[in-house]
Amino acid sequence: MSNRSGSPTQRTWDRTRQSREARLAAASAYARGKLVAADNVTKLLEAVVRPGDRVCLEGDNQKQADFLAASLAAVDPKIVNDLHIVQSGVVLAEHLDLFEAGVAKRLDFSYSGPQGGAIARALKAGKIELGAVHTYLELFSRYFVDLTPHVALTVARCADRDGNLYMGPNTEDSPVVVEATAFKQGIVIAQVNELVDRVPRVDVPGDRVDFVIVAPEPFYIEPLFTRDPAQITETQILGAMLAIKGIYAPYGVKRLNHGIGFNTAAIELILPTFAERLGLKGKIATHFALNPHPTLIPAIESGWVEQIHSFGSEVGMDDYMRARPDVFFTGRDGSMGSNRMYCQSAGLYATDLFIGSTLQIDLAGNSSTFTKDRVAGFGGAPNMGSDPHGRRHASDPWLQAGREAAGDTKALPRGRKLVVQIVETFGDKLSPTFVEELDSLALARSLDLPLPPVMIYGDDVSHIITEEGIANLLLCRTPLEREQAIRGIAGYTDVGRARDKRMVEELRARKVIQRPEDLGIDPLDANRSLLAARSIKELMHWSGNLYDPPAKFRNW
Amino acid sequence: MSNRSGSPTQRTWDRTRQSREARLAAASAYARGKLVAADNVTKLLEAVVRPGDRVCLEGDNQKQADFLAASLAAVDPKIVNDLHIVQSGVVLAEHLDLFEAGVAKRLDFSYSGPQGGAIARALKAGKIELGAVHTYLELFSRYFVDLTPHVALTVARCADRDGNLYMGPNTEDSPVVVEATAFKQGIVIAQVNELVDRVPRVDVPGDRVDFVIVAPEPFYIEPLFTRDPAQITETQILGAMLAIKGIYAPYGVKRLNHGIGFNTAAIELILPTFAERLGLKGKIATHFALNPHPTLIPAIESGWVEQIHSFGSEVGMDDYMRARPDVFFTGRDGSMGSNRMYCQSAGLYATDLFIGSTLQIDLAGNSSTFTKDRVAGFGGAPNMGSDPHGRRHASDPWLQAGREAAGDTKALPRGRKLVVQIVETFGDKLSPTFVEELDSLALARSLDLPLPPVMIYGDDVSHIITEEGIANLLLCRTPLEREQAIRGIAGYTDVGRARDKRMVEELRARKVIQRPEDLGIDPLDANRSLLAARSIKELMHWSGNLYDPPAKFRNW
Repeated sequence: MSNRSGSPTQRTWDRTRQSREARLAAASAYARGKLVAADNVTKLLEAVVRPGDRVCLEGDNQKQADFLAASLAAVDPKIVNDLHIVQSGVVLAEHLDLFEAGVAKRLDFSYSGPQGGAIARALKAGKIELGAVHTYLELFSRYFVDLTPHVALTVARCADRDGNLYMGPNTEDSPVVVEATAFKQGIVIAQVNELVDRVPRVDVPGDRVDFVIVAPEPFYIEPLFTRDPAQITETQILGAMLAIKGIYAPYGVKRLNHGIGFNTAAIELILPTFAERLGLKGKIATHFALNPHPTLIPAIESGWVEQIHSFGSEVGMDDYMRARPDVFFTGRDGSMGSNRMYCQSAGLYATDLFIGSTLQIDLAGNSSTFTKDRVAGFGGAPNMGSDPHGRRHASDPWLQAGREAAGDTKALPRGRKLVVQIVETFGDKLSPTFVEELDSLALARSLDLPLPPVMIYGDDVSHIITEEGIANLLLCRTPLEREQAIRGIAGYTDVGRARDKRMVEELRARKVIQRPEDLGIDPLDANRSLLAARSIKELMHWSGNLYDPPAKFRNW
Repeated sequence: MSNRSGSPTQRTWDRTRQSREARLAAASAYARGKLVAADNVTKLLEAVVRPGDRVCLEGDNQKQADFLAASLAAVDPKIVNDLHIVQSGVVLAEHLDLFEAGVAKRLDFSYSGPQGGAIARALKAGKIELGAVHTYLELFSRYFVDLTPHVALTVARCADRDGNLYMGPNTEDSPVVVEATAFKQGIVIAQVNELVDRVPRVDVPGDRVDFVIVAPEPFYIEPLFTRDPAQITETQILGAMLAIKGIYAPYGVKRLNHGIGFNTAAIELILPTFAERLGLKGKIATHFALNPHPTLIPAIESGWVEQIHSFGSEVGMDDYMRARPDVFFTGRDGSMGSNRMYCQSAGLYATDLFIGSTLQIDLAGNSSTFTKDRVAGFGGAPNMGSDPHGRRHASDPWLQAGREAAGDTKALPRGRKLVVQIVETFGDKLSPTFVEELDSLALARSLDLPLPPVMIYGDDVSHIITEEGIANLLLCRTPLEREQAIRGIAGYTDVGRARDKRMVEELRARKVIQRPEDLGIDPLDANRSLLAARSIKELMHWSGNLYDPPAKFRNW
């Protein structure tokens, strides 16, 4: 065999480093030290981005490198083209412009929000070559394996001349994006709101950052996690009561993540009222992997919440979080620090329950937020809404769920995660939530996707809550029982009306299905007076006026 | 309900910050700025650590904050006691001394290595109150939820006077430990090998670090991932051939993680020989989430490996990695950078195959490395050896494994991870690898653990390889088939001899079991001449003498 003797191979082992040096040399005309004038950014990008590069254009769940996005969309596609965009959130019009302009070709992402329709159209028109729609955690993970960016365009509140970056509460994806890029000899460019002599704290060390641009406007940020209590319905309050009394209480769920819909906002708002009267304070909902939802303020102020670690931030919450360091993670400068990678991992491995909503659920409990015309992206739900088979630490809720799932089987005892879907039987425009086949199957066929997009697979779902009750899928012993348990809470949808009534009553007798009355809940009590705050203004008052609601939520 | 009006609550919201300030004030007698003399460290710890604190004493898979460990073991237990140690690796005698001395009481950890026996004895003697044995990723995740450290004792190669830390290739757990602690107002103390004017690169920003101590000796580090090719047996080479030809090739596995045993070292060493002759170069094993195993050098030098992201480093590999930036993640200073949190996540979500060894496998495919007398810890195996239900991006191996697992079922199509156990039918001292009941069940009973410790659950295992062949568990349709597939490759163990011969032949006909000859492999070809390097010295030669083997492996 080919043992060799002493001399190193002749292969070049630092092509990435040479490429980096060539790019930096080409960029030098447009930079003074690390500083680049806003006018020069498109030229800078033409100098450092090469055709075919993987580019991470930050694109988070909240903050946006919007100036860099517009600048990249303005490059000459004869110079920069065929880019492979790897970015968690595709939410700005500029993100799609890249593909329209022929600058970018391939896309791997996690979440599209408002651009879901535009992405579907671009896919159908062949303007985007889709890699995959990921969870955040799996996309970040691939940054270290097979989707490492050649160039990262990041965004911070301020920088110093050495390139040290301060992201403040919106740290979000930046640390992981920058680490993956910088340590593979990529180029890191940051847009900032201002240049300062000394950053309040270092969220990204300057030696990982190549160029800094003071953008003409502060970066765009969406108040994505603000739910106005005024819009919460009594049906949603009923669902929240069912969740607390039917799931949180009997399992003793202390560590959790939940979604951003009005259903879960209702849960937040009845902790200090309904749950308090049940004597549950300190026994449930104490530790969160969660963004700083304004609707959580009354529960925090009432002493319900011990600790929250956050993926990102929320507009208007900065001062409040700074004043509540016992609850929020705050840096040495006093401001909150988020980290989407760490928090997604916390949501996967260190919580006992995920509860969230969805658009459609099929007879096996599979769910999706994709419809025929929208490639929505799932964000973090598939990650946190999955039972992590690699988890090994026990907790009471996890052991109890595991016992229920095992039944009388001879398998080794093990725990499992509570994964709850909370929905109304009919959604927007009276479209039924429960369906025989998910729309995403048709979408997968029309776009020739390798698999139909599923947000949470049925076998990971432990409970489904509707206004008709709770289905405990852990207790179902056959696929048929599972189907009937789902039909049994699907109300007047076609799926619900096709139930086998005798079997559903049997499941109810076994507590596989629990109606509100089985839990001692009178739907007539599901009243808006249960909400600890009934408006944005009341949230502000609860916060001692530390919460500063964004303009679009100020209607007084 | 209780809306309040305007005035902030009277509750104190910064107890953590007040506690931090009190600790810093008490410490000031022992520090000049951030610098603390080595002689003063025990006094410093008595000043800043409070009874009942959660303390993360780093304790990684490789590097050890050994001076801080010894200093903490030397505190007066009347002042510092009842500590809750949260630390990934419990591997030094000093780590156990803390419990003997009454300084620490409770323990949450991931991996114990050489201290597995001592931990089991301390548990039985009631000297340690066990929280849980975690994977790395779930322990790190809990640092942000319910196991946030009050004090972190970290370790770096050097620091500057502002507390900026350079960990170099052994970055490992430090960034995540420090972030969780510093952002919850905890105290961060670092031992370093030297103080410098300017660190080569910033792995942890100084504003997260409170105290820096130049330790009397460089920190301890174990060459844990070095396998001497001289010790690889022909049976292990046969297993490696089966893995490559029977699994890597047909599934087209490019992205993977594998274990640290001699079996997987054999795989590394026959890539440039056996696999090269099969024409597999570029088609398999190109992207790794893996520590820098010296036995991977021939594959790297032969151009097999595109990219490796690492959990930690390995003694002697520094110069080699610095010279191979196209393959390894290296910082702006040129040295390698590792990150256990990111790499564990990569191993979970961005690889298609995990292959590793174990001590015992039962009839359902459950495995464990715990024995009656050792609480070993699992490290990363349960994480990477699990099928992540939250994964949504497709790849060919993942889709193929999913199709095989689904068979004719009507369930939605989905992918799944390849999780392979590679073992010999008899292990050390001729103890059988295949057993009716895992020893860890007896251990769980004797220690009253909530669940028996299992490394990988059987339903996550896709294949088991022994010298007798490969069992593909994905293709088993019933628990009985699964049991017989396992018996069918269990050789002359009791489990193997109790096989149903007719059924095993049927499984072989269906390719559920594949013998070496079914794959065109002659066991007589499993010869040490297949190893691209047969000694540590040859690995060094392959590296162009850039690899600098530790003294204990230099036998020439």
